[in-house]
Amino acid sequence: MIVEIINTGSELMLGFVLNTHQQWLCRQLADAGYTVTRQVAIADTGLAIQAAVRESLARADFVIVTGGLGPTSDDLTRDLIAELLGRKLRLDEGIAAGLRAFFARRGRNMPETTLVQAQVPEGAEVLPNPNGTAPGLALTVAPNPFRPGGRLSRLIMLPGPPREMRPMFLAEVLPMLQREFPLADPFVCRTLRTTGIGESFAEDRIRGPLQPLVASGLELGYCAHYGSVDVRIVTRGRAAESLAAEAEAIIRSQLGAHVFGTQDDELPGTVVALLTERRQTLVLAESCTGGYIANQITNVPGASAVLLAGIVTYSDAAKQSLLAVREETLAAHGAVSEATVRQMAEGARARLRADYALAVTGIAGPGGGSEAKPVGTVFIALATARQTLVMNPTNRYDRATFKIVTCQQALELLRRNLLGE
Amino acid sequence: MIVEIINTGSELMLGFVLNTHQQWLCRQLADAGYTVTRQVAIADTGLAIQAAVRESLARADFVIVTGGLGPTSDDLTRDLIAELLGRKLRLDEGIAAGLRAFFARRGRNMPETTLVQAQVPEGAEVLPNPNGTAPGLALTVAPNPFRPGGRLSRLIMLPGPPREMRPMFLAEVLPMLQREFPLADPFVCRTLRTTGIGESFAEDRIRGPLQPLVASGLELGYCAHYGSVDVRIVTRGRAAESLAAEAEAIIRSQLGAHVFGTQDDELPGTVVALLTERRQTLVLAESCTGGYIANQITNVPGASAVLLAGIVTYSDAAKQSLLAVREETLAAHGAVSEATVRQMAEGARARLRADYALAVTGIAGPGGGSEAKPVGTVFIALATARQTLVMNPTNRYDRATFKIVTCQQALELLRRNLLGE
Repeated sequence: MIVEIINTGSELMLGFVLNTHQQWLCRQLADAGYTVTRQVAIADTGLAIQAAVRESLARADFVIVTGGLGPTSDDLTRDLIAELLGRKLRLDEGIAAGLRAFFARRGRNMPETTLVQAQVPEGAEVLPNPNGTAPGLALTVAPNPFRPGGRLSRLIMLPGPPREMRPMFLAEVLPMLQREFPLADPFVCRTLRTTGIGESFAEDRIRGPLQPLVASGLELGYCAHYGSVDVRIVTRGRAAESLAAEAEAIIRSQLGAHVFGTQDDELPGTVVALLTERRQTLVLAESCTGGYIANQITNVPGASAVLLAGIVTYSDAAKQSLLAVREETLAAHGAVSEATVRQMAEGARARLRADYALAVTGIAGPGGGSEAKPVGTVFIALATARQTLVMNPTNRYDRATFKIVTCQQALELLRRNLLGE
Repeated sequence: MIVEIINTGSELMLGFVLNTHQQWLCRQLADAGYTVTRQVAIADTGLAIQAAVRESLARADFVIVTGGLGPTSDDLTRDLIAELLGRKLRLDEGIAAGLRAFFARRGRNMPETTLVQAQVPEGAEVLPNPNGTAPGLALTVAPNPFRPGGRLSRLIMLPGPPREMRPMFLAEVLPMLQREFPLADPFVCRTLRTTGIGESFAEDRIRGPLQPLVASGLELGYCAHYGSVDVRIVTRGRAAESLAAEAEAIIRSQLGAHVFGTQDDELPGTVVALLTERRQTLVLAESCTGGYIANQITNVPGASAVLLAGIVTYSDAAKQSLLAVREETLAAHGAVSEATVRQMAEGARARLRADYALAVTGIAGPGGGSEAKPVGTVFIALATARQTLVMNPTNRYDRATFKIVTCQQALELLRRNLLGE
């Protein structure tokens, strides 16, 4: 079973936009048991699109093409593919009516060019687009003129905007793929997300205990991000579910509380969920992370139930006036010190009457380091009703990565405390 | 001149990581006048890598392959390409000595597998890697067995980690490309970054005045991001510089202060630079953006010279205690109101004794909207020594996009004020 993806768009080739389609589609497909063999990006010009589609049809069972279905002059995918396959285009009255209604609802006149989106190649199925104007299209290429033996390929065209493409893929394309190309065997894919442990240490702890399961067909994968490591379990066959469950149990027992979630869980969401469950509140006092932690927490819908405030004190004066850090402390120990971070956390907690306060101070760089406190020096404090915990990692990274790693460490300190560890 | 990029890595095909190499390399090349024709991503397995390299060598003058040069068992690019081209690998003593020194400096033992990175295919140039262990490699494929007429191709292998790949590309590969495949004509590429004006409005204003220059060979491109639109000017030939300068002058006169920067400038950097120049200070009071603006500002190195504090007041109590918003105001008008945002800005400015205060309150969604104040309602205030300005846009987007757009609007309000408009 061969799946390929073709992303069209001159803006991709000029480096104007990041190709998020690739990661998203590959991940959705991998989690469903289908691995993408090849992804190609090309400009939205005639020759390039037709060449890429011809080559993919020569190899693949299922080809997904994104982009170029809109109404403007550089939206050529539909026409070029119809031409390549020798299919006539016809105006689909249902789509045309839908387009007219779309504009009517918004009280806008419909430009005539819009109707190009109602053109459908002979024999194509129309995939509805509830989030935009361009419908998707699904073609069956059989006999397939480009493939040895004329073997059938499916060719799917999806609109380029992510908020149109993604729901259409999930509602229409994935079920179609699973129906038409069912996996030979049951398939389970599970990702366990860990933090606070390096990739090789995680591997060292679980490799031995999992060895018998690997011998029975368990596939293991590791993926390191800044501040976290994913362990991916894949199993196939009749025993897939039980094998995966067994593997998960072993990994959880070996890695313990390092495992903070599964699949797409993120640490901020995990922490917000734990606090919400306990009806407890949080306040943040950030210096070197400059609002990054507050931003991560407030990206979680419902964060307002737990986050009372985030205070970014970039100046010494702000540390004093907003967090009641004492002038003598700053003078004696400096802004980047255990004494200061402790007062930041305790000051923030008292001021907002929160259950927990997390405080961070450090030197993100590129400037500001010294012999005694080099760039990367960080102090993190967690103030609770019972005590104030302080940790002092060294995070030598560029400015953006520094923030990511420091945030993970701070949230992990809170999570461990919430779990009673 | 045909340039292609091949990105290797099973983590790409499983959707574990975003392929940032594509955008970055395409952008660097486009800005230097070379357009990438095709980008391919494949798993790091033997057949896939060799097939992709063979196909690119059959088409392209310059092929860049990223990833798979490291020391672990899935780093196969070097071996597979040497095999494909029938080149023997030899141990490069210079690289080996460098690897030993790298580990010695860090006081760590060097695993023997590390030395695989010192293997060099016959005839390859070594591209030094000051930021990691795996050097890059540059091969000349001539005669090229895969290309009609045996025409020469260059084949470049770069390490996968961005902080190793990017400096190596800029220091070694781009100069090599420009030396070996000089552009036939002088080439100028300039991007003007705008905000506060939609793509079609920007196009309407400049299309007419630029018409004569387009007739003389000016190429124009537009790229819309959330909250900003890029206008890209490309000119070629002997008059490239003067044509580009003339085009830039026309665009600037038509779009006026909507142009906030060029090339890779970002609004937070522009605002920090303006404030630094004026030795003025800023304080932020954020509700619905939850620290996003503070994080954007503190991503700019040197932001500590201008940002005194960012106060994220997610709760009403925090608005009262940290920003001196009056209880009666919250009761009478609600947290999302002109009266509240005004007090947030003025309270923050007074409290920190800053020159400027930006305050934001609104409903990011998905929940929390009402008939009178639907999701997307935003109030933004700028408090200065002279006055407090308030704007009230409606930003109906998902939570993450809402933050981006609102931040752009707030920073643009400040930028316009700093420019005296």
